[in-house]
Formats: sequence, structure tokens, C-alpha cells
Amino acid sequence: MNVGGLLASVGVNSVVCLGVFSLYSVLRKQPHFVSVYFGHKLARARSKRHDPFWLARLVPSASWVVKAYNATEDELYVAGGVDAVVFLRAVVFSIKLFTVASVICLVFVLPLNYFGKEMEHKEIREELLTVFTIGNVQRGSEWLGFHCFVLHIITICACFFLYSEFKHIMKMRLNHINSPLHSASQFTVVVRAIPWIDQESYSDTLTRFFTDTYSTSYLSHQMVYEKSAIQKLMSDAERMYKILKSVHMERRYVKRLLRCGFCGGNNNASQEMKELSDESKSITQEETFLDDSDECGAALVFFRTRYAALVASEALQTQNPMAWVTDAAPEPRDMFWANLCVSYQSLWIRKIIVVFASFFFVTFFLVPVVFTQSLVHLDTLTQFLPFLEKAVGRVVLEQLVTGYLPSVILTLFLYMVPPVMYVFSTLEGVISRSERKRSACIKVVYFVIWNVFFANILTEAAIVHYQISILKLGDYKNIPALLAKAATFFMTYCLTSGWASLACELIQVVPLLSNVVSRYILKNNSESSTSNPFSFPYHTEVPRVLLFGLLGITCCTLAPLILPFVLVYFVLAFLVYRNQILNVYVMKYDSGGQYWPIVHNTAIFSLVLMQVIALGVFGIKDAPGPSTFTFPLIVLTLLFNQFCRQRFLPVFFRTPAKSVIEMDRVDEQSGQMEDIHQSLLTAYSQYKSKSGRWGSRKFGEMSRSNSAHDTAEMGDISHA
Amino acid sequence: MNVGGLLASVGVNSVVCLGVFSLYSVLRKQPHFVSVYFGHKLARARSKRHDPFWLARLVPSASWVVKAYNATEDELYVAGGVDAVVFLRAVVFSIKLFTVASVICLVFVLPLNYFGKEMEHKEIREELLTVFTIGNVQRGSEWLGFHCFVLHIITICACFFLYSEFKHIMKMRLNHINSPLHSASQFTVVVRAIPWIDQESYSDTLTRFFTDTYSTSYLSHQMVYEKSAIQKLMSDAERMYKILKSVHMERRYVKRLLRCGFCGGNNNASQEMKELSDESKSITQEETFLDDSDECGAALVFFRTRYAALVASEALQTQNPMAWVTDAAPEPRDMFWANLCVSYQSLWIRKIIVVFASFFFVTFFLVPVVFTQSLVHLDTLTQFLPFLEKAVGRVVLEQLVTGYLPSVILTLFLYMVPPVMYVFSTLEGVISRSERKRSACIKVVYFVIWNVFFANILTEAAIVHYQISILKLGDYKNIPALLAKAATFFMTYCLTSGWASLACELIQVVPLLSNVVSRYILKNNSESSTSNPFSFPYHTEVPRVLLFGLLGITCCTLAPLILPFVLVYFVLAFLVYRNQILNVYVMKYDSGGQYWPIVHNTAIFSLVLMQVIALGVFGIKDAPGPSTFTFPLIVLTLLFNQFCRQRFLPVFFRTPAKSVIEMDRVDEQSGQMEDIHQSLLTAYSQYKSKSGRWGSRKFGEMSRSNSAHDTAEMGDISHA
Repeated sequence: MNVGGLLASVGVNSVVCLGVFSLYSVLRKQPHFVSVYFGHKLARARSKRHDPFWLARLVPSASWVVKAYNATEDELYVAGGVDAVVFLRAVVFSIKLFTVASVICLVFVLPLNYFGKEMEHKEIREELLTVFTIGNVQRGSEWLGFHCFVLHIITICACFFLYSEFKHIMKMRLNHINSPLHSASQFTVVVRAIPWIDQESYSDTLTRFFTDTYSTSYLSHQMVYEKSAIQKLMSDAERMYKILKSVHMERRYVKRLLRCGFCGGNNNASQEMKELSDESKSITQEETFLDDSDECGAALVFFRTRYAALVASEALQTQNPMAWVTDAAPEPRDMFWANLCVSYQSLWIRKIIVVFASFFFVTFFLVPVVFTQSLVHLDTLTQFLPFLEKAVGRVVLEQLVTGYLPSVILTLFLYMVPPVMYVFSTLEGVISRSERKRSACIKVVYFVIWNVFFANILTEAAIVHYQISILKLGDYKNIPALLAKAATFFMTYCLTSGWASLACELIQVVPLLSNVVSRYILKNNSESSTSNPFSFPYHTEVPRVLLFGLLGITCCTLAPLILPFVLVYFVLAFLVYRNQILNVYVMKYDSGGQYWPIVHNTAIFSLVLMQVIALGVFGIKDAPGPSTFTFPLIVLTLLFNQFCRQRFLPVFFRTPAKSVIEMDRVDEQSGQMEDIHQSLLTAYSQYKSKSGRWGSRKFGEMSRSNSAHDTAEMGDISHA
Repeated sequence: MNVGGLLASVGVNSVVCLGVFSLYSVLRKQPHFVSVYFGHKLARARSKRHDPFWLARLVPSASWVVKAYNATEDELYVAGGVDAVVFLRAVVFSIKLFTVASVICLVFVLPLNYFGKEMEHKEIREELLTVFTIGNVQRGSEWLGFHCFVLHIITICACFFLYSEFKHIMKMRLNHINSPLHSASQFTVVVRAIPWIDQESYSDTLTRFFTDTYSTSYLSHQMVYEKSAIQKLMSDAERMYKILKSVHMERRYVKRLLRCGFCGGNNNASQEMKELSDESKSITQEETFLDDSDECGAALVFFRTRYAALVASEALQTQNPMAWVTDAAPEPRDMFWANLCVSYQSLWIRKIIVVFASFFFVTFFLVPVVFTQSLVHLDTLTQFLPFLEKAVGRVVLEQLVTGYLPSVILTLFLYMVPPVMYVFSTLEGVISRSERKRSACIKVVYFVIWNVFFANILTEAAIVHYQISILKLGDYKNIPALLAKAATFFMTYCLTSGWASLACELIQVVPLLSNVVSRYILKNNSESSTSNPFSFPYHTEVPRVLLFGLLGITCCTLAPLILPFVLVYFVLAFLVYRNQILNVYVMKYDSGGQYWPIVHNTAIFSLVLMQVIALGVFGIKDAPGPSTFTFPLIVLTLLFNQFCRQRFLPVFFRTPAKSVIEMDRVDEQSGQMEDIHQSLLTAYSQYKSKSGRWGSRKFGEMSRSNSAHDTAEMGDISHA
């Protein structure tokens, strides 16, 4: 591929992106698509204004960019939780790193590569892209020392950024888990593998065990039920009836309260109020009085203090490690009830099976990738589909085929991966939704790194080998040139898959289409069908961002031409994802920043890979000096990683005792402990909507104040 | 090597062993060597009888064998702790397994191998040993199915034995850690990385932190001191003076007590007693009133209940995971004080360095092994040292060289490994002596498996390749024959290194020589110099036993001829180690059976290696049926291992909360808690003899009753 081809690809992609972004800025002003583009705000304030100004609505504008840029970290935290902030900080980290890398590499390394070999340079448009890579530097050249120096600078910058981010995110996580919003989970422990004792229900066994062992700190418990489909239907109907009834009563109560407020007496109203609360209590009790035979060997156990719960969740309970297994409870809305009933004895074998299944999935996915890659090469393509050349013309076809097609096909294939990994993570038996998403995210990261990065280089190597015998294009046997070739592909991949994915993300292709179909074809005007907002798909977006980080880092000294594209990708990602988190997605659950270790590990992996590749290239290029200086850099990077793991990582998986003890003390001194204990009993509900009832009690103030803020802000949706 | 050579080697080794065993049975009756052979009993009862019967003393006898055989597990537990029992159970496991394997393989597999190929068999003495291996079975033979069947039977037996042993040892460990003998460590937590706050001693910081965080359960603490050499000398002298003084006073007190007993009054005596205990208290207090500047950032913290200590040891204390690091405390006699003062911040980097150092040590040790192996081959040897052949004669030389020399040289080299690994484990920063020994043991296991097992096969392969070009001995290119060749070497290795090591262990070469030297050459008649008994060297003996287990298991279907030798080794090991644990070694500290996971993992590794090798051999021999059936066996073995890890392993590294809570309850109900709290304050002493003061208080009854039993038994030392 030459510079002309690259510029054509850049042009096409820029125009597409700009078009989509403009289209978005128009579509978001249409009231019909509020449910598509403002799901987040809709979920908070269920009101909607129809704006009459039709003309302004059709003019593309950049106001959303300004708003996304101006949002503060606190706003993002409120909108998307710690996870959203962590994700955006990963993007910011990439922007910082690639700004530094771009400046250094484009100003200093690129000319070195270009003039690295004495050769006659063609006109710049005709120049092959490989001329800009390290493959163009002469063997044994002294300039390679400069490459090594740049490697050091980039590594040091990356480590510095990583350290400060890790520190910042650790603090944020600690503030998050210490916030009183999470009291329910802090007092609760999930118990699995309750042993079955004859002629005794699980509930009795559990009560006996905990009153015996944790006599002073045990508060109460709530069994987990395995419900057959019919029972579930029945109870659903019953609950619906009760909810309707209570809503009816609430209205009556409010009316009467207003009347009483005027007439001075409120005896009736308070009686109604009592009736109402009794009603809501009976809903909860009805659930706890389910048939014993439906109980699973799992339960939620509530403790009197946070510390007691923490201690109970971390201890090995009995002499049999496969009975009375305790874990810290997820937040009520984060619970994944279905997996709690899975027999704990089968979990280890499930995990093994999932590991193997994931491994084979990752491995066998290579087949379509290889097939895709074989299509990249024009000559192979025209051989199979000769009519194409006549129809489109050779030049256009070449531009399209080498610059666009392979990435598009690969991207389509990649769309099926996250759902499969999601299923795998579900089968693993995780007990929280956030953990399921995190686990899927890790699998997708492995998948993407192996199948996009390594498989591309390997297939490139195979195909290059194949080309030698046919086209005699020259001596491809040295690895630097091969890497340079791969880097060229990654450049176009970044252009197409990267930029396009952001455009798709922004315009929300699938919800938009389903909205249009339901509105204009099915003539369904109710908003309800499309207004169920999603939570942010970390398991697809985190791996994508990490992949482009990996591509940028590994290629930065080899083929610096990739850096501007990666940088542009990250700047766009910064704006788009901020906008989406603020407007589109709702936060249904939060892992508390547990995505950061994934980001950190991948960044370290990328750095080490960059260094190892550079070491290999220096070796091949007969540069003993740079090789010698690169080796300690690898060691130091790994040591830095180990240090971060020691210093920060434990906080991401365990809760510090001291802060929990202090929170307990504060609550005890302020006398709120009793209230919290009361609210605990209704915090978790297995058969409730996902939003949970917890927010309606004491801990709901914050969200309530936010929704007030939102309602005030809703007016500007249409002006946006 | 042919059958004749093997028989010669067996003869030589049997005679040597029998000779050494007889010599031992004579030497142990000599009063001069009581300190060498009865260190254990001497340490318990410091009395010695000189027996006048000289004639009976010079007659070899087998009474020690009977005594060793008849010892019960309880006796072994009392003598050597859980670790000794675990070690002997590993030997018993091997005996069971190899009895089954020997019967099956010698009766069914050996004839199959011998008659596997249609060939003219020579006279049995002239027959090469490789004829008895699987290498002799024809390609595609149906008999290989029987090999596969035997493989299954042995695996199933091994898994069954492993499971029952793991279960038994887990129970034993639980009983052990729940015994009141270990109260001191159960109430104590080791705190490291106490942060340094200006103008405050570590002790004050610690007091503030624990009274604040664990206000209800914190009892007291004891700082760890870093002592300069001069201070240590001074305090040693001072302590010596005080001890002498107290011994003097004790005598006076006993005399006076006797006198008072007769005259009825004991006012003076009780006053003296008080004086004496004040004196001993002042020794302890003098240690705690050391200069603040000598304090390390480490301390022992005592809690009011076992449960509080357990919880504090397992929790993450503060938001900084590298400060206030808590661990369960080792027993007082097991403490490794020197490492407590090591900066916790440097521990992770120390561990990394040790891992790399161990790795390089294991790798570069190959050089002398390869050199040793090159000497094995007679022709190479005679080439370099031609005079040998003339001096000894070719036949004798051949027997010696192929049957004996290589193992001897290798064994000598191996003697330097355990001390090096011991140093590595010390550098790692472990805080208990038992953990240091366990860590060294793991390193030696890796070392031995790699350097003896794999390196031998690899060098055998290299040398065989070398021989082909010189001697044209035939087609060695197929791997089964190579393995058969290696198995032959392992057979002689088992004969020489195995049997001889047991003989050396029994006769205690080094202590015996040092005793003889000090007595007859240095004319030093005091017992003290040689009567300091050692603790059992698990870090050399466990890897040795595991290595022979590995050799036996991997070779059992390939070269069944090795099995009788391995079985004899284990039977001898059973008798010898029992005898040594009962008579020679003292238990200074105990890891509570933590050697078993090492044994278990190595056994599983051996089984899987056996299966993989068999799979390879079946593949080479064109036997698709056996190959197909072997693969699921590997999977099932690994699943069995995973199950055992889930089911039993957690108990080996964590303490169950329930049992600790029950112990607390029992002590509280019986009102002993106060006594225990009192005794805690003097339990740990940094500058005391290794035996510890703990045993002298409440928890010393058991050992005192044992020593009474020993004194009674001491009489039969000379009759033994």
C-alpha cells in the first residue's frame, strides 16, 4: 500500500465519520429518537417535551461535543459510576501517552526511518508505506540508538501515567466502596453450599450454624429460592395486583393528606400510611414464606456490623472447604440470582470447562480470520471473482480491497464474539452481573489480542511467504519488513474498524433501526418498546480501546505513521464515550473500578511486547548497543508492574478492615444502625425489577436529588 | 547393561547395605555413640547409663528393625510431629502403590515385554536389560492394550491411595492445629511494615492503631528488635549471669524447701520463690525495655481470643496494602526472628530475585551432570584414562563404570544443593523456620526432578546419538528404546543412590565421624560438643523419596524391572526413617503437615508424566486403541487433582473459623482465658534458646509426661 492509498482511505473514513457525526447531531434533536439517544436521562425523569422548532433541528451542530468535553468527572461518576470513570480514564491515559509518542516519533523517528537507507525516494504520493518504517533503516546503523532512546522515553512516560492513574483510581474505588450508598452489600454475605441435613430445611440449618458460630453479630438471613416457571408466573400476577393496589392507595393517601393538611387533622392519613407499609411488608414476607422445597443451598446472611460481614465473608468457615462457602455480597441491583442456585460442588468443574471452551473458541476463530486475510490480496480475489475487476476498475478495486474490505469482514466476524464470551462467563457461575461482564471483558481482551494482533502478523507472514514464490516482490525474509507490513494493515484497521466503530456507537445503529422499524413500519407509537436503556457494554468497548492502545504502542517506533490515526481515534473515543455515558446508557450495576487492573495489565503487556519486538529488530539489524540497553528496560517494566500489583491491586479485591470499622463506628454513634438493620431486611429481593427497592429507602436521597437535577436539565435535550 | 551386570550391582549394593545395617546395629549399642544415635532421647532425658555387657554389644542384631516396625503413629507424632507422620505416610503410600504395581507389572507386563518380539533369547545372564522393556514389544502389537489396562489400574489405585491419605492427613492437621499446645501462636499475629511516624516510636504507633481498630480484642504486643552485634554480646553475657544466678537460687530454694518440708514452715521458701520469679520476669522485661531506636517496623500482637487473632491475620488492614501487613504467627519455637526485621517493602523484589536465582541454579547445574553422564560410557573413559583398563581389567571396569560410578559422582554433586536452596529460602524473607524448610524442600524437588530425571533422559539421548556414529550399535532412533535405556540407568541409580543414601542416613556418617574425631583424635571427652541433635532434614529427604516415587511410577509399565528395587528402597526407607525419627532427630518446629501438598502434587505429576510417556510410546508403536484410552485417563487424573485441591487444600493454608470459635468458647467457659493471656506475654522471646519458654508453662504437661516415659525407656538403649 502506498501513501496515495492511505490518503484515499483516510479521506473516505473521515468523510464517513463526519457524515455520521453530523447525522447524529441532527437525529438527537428529533423528539422521536429521544428514547434512542437519551435513554439515560429518560430513565431518570420519565417526562418528555416536544419541541416545536423544526428548522434548527435539521442543522448539524457541534454542541454535543462541547457538552461532552465540559462534563466533569463527578458528573460522569453520577451518570456511569466508577466503571465509567475508569473507562474514560483509560482513554485519557491513551491520549496522553500517544500525544507524547506522536510528537517524539513523528518529529524524530519518522525522518530517521525515511532517510534511513540511501535510496531514491519517489514522489511522496507513490511512496510505499514501508518506507516510513524501521525496516527502511540500514543494518548496523547508528540511528537505531535513537530508536532505543525513544523506546525508553515512551516506556517511562507510560509507567508514570499508569502509576498516577492507578493511584487515582484506587482512591476513587475506596471512596466508592466507603460511600453509604452501598450499605446493603456491606452488611451482607452470600453463603453457598449449605449442607443438606435430613428432616431440616436449609433455612433451619443456616440459622443454627450462624447463631452458633456468629452469635453476637448474626442479624438475619434470606434464603435463595429455585422457582419453577408456573410459580413465578403466579407470584408475578399477585405482585402486580398488589403494586397496583398500593399505587391506588398511595394516591388516595396523598389526596387525603392534602385535605388533612388544610383541615388540620391527619388521623386517617397516618392510619392509611400504616396500612400501606403493612401492605408492602406483606409483599416481602410472602416471598420469604415460600415452600421450603424450593430453597437452594444458598442464602444471603445479614450481619449487625460491616466488619462482622467482612470477616465472615473472608473466613474459611468449617473444616470442609466445600461447605458453608461465604463471599462478599454484591449490591442488590448487581445480584445474579440465577447462578446462586448452581451447586457449589460443580463450580470448579464448570470453571475448567469454560476455560477450555474459551481457549478452543479463541483458537478456532482463526479459521475465518485466515480466510478474511486471504481475501485482502487483490490477486487472490480477482482469481476467484474475475468479474469484479471489470465492474469496478482495477485501481478503485485495489484501493478498496487493500484499504477497506479485510477490516470490514473481520469487524463483522468480531461482532459475534462478545455474546459468546458472555454466555461462557454466565456458565462460570459468577454471582454478580458486574463480575459476569468483567469476566467476559477479560475473555474478549484475550480473544482480540490473539486474533487481531498476533493472527494478523502470522497470516501476513504466511501470505508473504506465498507471495514470494508467485510475485517475486523481493526479499521479505527479514522480520522488520514483515512487521512493517503488518503495521500497515493495523493502520487501515484503525482507520476503518476504529473510527467506524465510534461512529456506529454514536449513532446507535441497532436501537435507531429498531426505533424506526417499530415507529414507521409497525406503526407502534408507544415509547415503552424502545425506551428500555442498556447498561454500558464494557465487555466490548474496553477490549476495543485496549486493542488500539496495543496497536499504537507496539508500532510506535517501528511504524510511527500509525500514531496520528490512533491519537485521532482516542480523541474521538473520548468525546463519543463521554457523550454516550452521559446521555445514552444507564448504570444498572457497578464493579467499582475493577476494569482498571485489566487496562493496566494490557498496557504493561503492550509495553513489554513493544520492547521485545524492538529487541528482536535491533538484533536483526546488527545493533548490539540498543539491544543491550533494551533488555534492562524489559526487566524494569516488569518490576514496575509487580510493584503496582503489590501496592494497589489488593484493594481491588479486598476491603480494608480499618475503613469498614470506622464506618460502623460513625453509624453507631449517630444511632443510624437500627435504621440500617431495618432496611437490610427489604434490600434484597429475588423477584423484583432490576432497579431494586433499596434506593427508595434512606440511601435513595442522592439519586432522588440527581433526578430532580435531571428533570430541570431535560428541557435542553431538544435544544442540544 | 545386561542382566549379569545388574545382578552384580544388586549383589554389591545388598552386601554394602547389609554391612552398614549390621554395623549400625553394633554401633548403636556403644555408649560412646549414644549422642549420635539417640539424640532425640538424649534431648528429652539428659541421663546416660554405661552398660557393662561388652560381648552382646558386638553382635549385630535386628531388634531396631522390630522396634521401628512396631512404633505406632501416635508415638511418631509425639516424636516428630505431624511432619514426621506425613513424611512416613508418603513412604507408606509409595509402598502400597509399588506393591500393587510390582505384582501386576512383574507377573503380567514383564513377560509381555520379554516375549513381545519374535527373537532368539540369549541365556538369561547375558540378556540385555532393554529386552525387558516396552521397547521390545512389536509395533502395532495387540499386547499394548494390556499395557494401557495396567496403566489404568495403577492410576486408579494411586488416586484412591492419594485421596485416602489426603483425607487422613487433613484430619490429623486439623487435630494438630486445634490442640491447646499451640495456644500461643493462635492468639498472636505478626505485624510487619508498621509505618514510621515522626517523633513516635513504632511501639506507640502500633498501640494507637490496634487500640483504635481492634479496641475490644487487642490485648498487648511485643516489638521485634534489631540488635547490633555488640549489644547482643553484652546482653548474652548478662543473661548468662542471670541464668547462673537463678540456677544457684533454685538449688538453694529446693534445699530450703526440703528442709522446710521437714520443719513445717515455708515462709522463707515462698519468699525465695517470689524472688526467683521476679528475677525471671526482669529478664523478659529487660528485653522489652530495649532502646526504641532498635525497634524494627515489626511486632507480635496478642489478641484476647483466637478468633480475633485469626480475623486480624487474614484481613487487609488499611487502604495501603503495603502497610500494617498481618500474618498468622508461627509457634514460638518456629519463629525466624532475623527475617522479621527485613523491610516488607523489599520482600516482593527479594522473592523475584530468589525465583530467578533458583531458576538459574537449576539450569546451570546441568553442566556437571552432563560431565558425569559422559563418564558413564566406558569407551569415552578409557579413551581419556587408558591406564585404568590395564590396572583393573576390562570386565570389572565395565561393571563398575556402567553400574556404579555415574550415580556416585552425581550423588556427591547433589549434596551441595540443599544448603544452597536453604540460603535462597532464607533470603525470601519467610518468618518461620518450618516455612523456610518447606520452601527449600519445594526448590529441591524442582531441582531433583529436572536435574536427575529429565537431564538424564536428555543427556542419554545426546550420548546415544553420539554413539551411533562411533559404535553403530544399532537403530536407537525410536524413543521407547531411549526411555528403556534411561530406565536402566534409573535402576542402577535406585540401587546405588537410593539404597546407599538410606545406609548413610542410618549410620549418620558425618556426626559419627565428628564424634570419632573429637573423641579419639582431639581427645575431647565432653558430650556437649556432639550432643546437639538436629531436626529432621525434610528438605533433603522429602525430595529424595519423591524422586524415587517418580522414577518408579514413570517406569512401571515401560521397564517393570525397576519396580522391585524401588519397592525394596521404600521398605528400607520405612524402617530406617521410622528408626531415625524415633531415636535420632528432635522436633524443633512443625509445619503441621504442609509437606503433604508437595507430595500430592509430585505424585500427580508423576502419574501424568507416566501417562503422557505411555501415550507417546503407544503413538510410536502404532497402537491407536491404547492411545485413545490413555488420553481421557490424563484428563481424569488432572480433574482428580483439581478436586483434591478444592476439597482439602484450603485447610492447609487457612484456619477454619468454626473450630477456633469453639476453642475460644471452651476456654472461656472453663475460665482458663486469663491464664492463657498471662502466659502469652512470656511466650515469645526473641533472645532465647530455640526450645522456647512456652513449653514450661501450662502447655508443657504433655512433653513432661513424655520425657518421664523416655527416662524409663532410656534403660533399654544399651540393650537395644
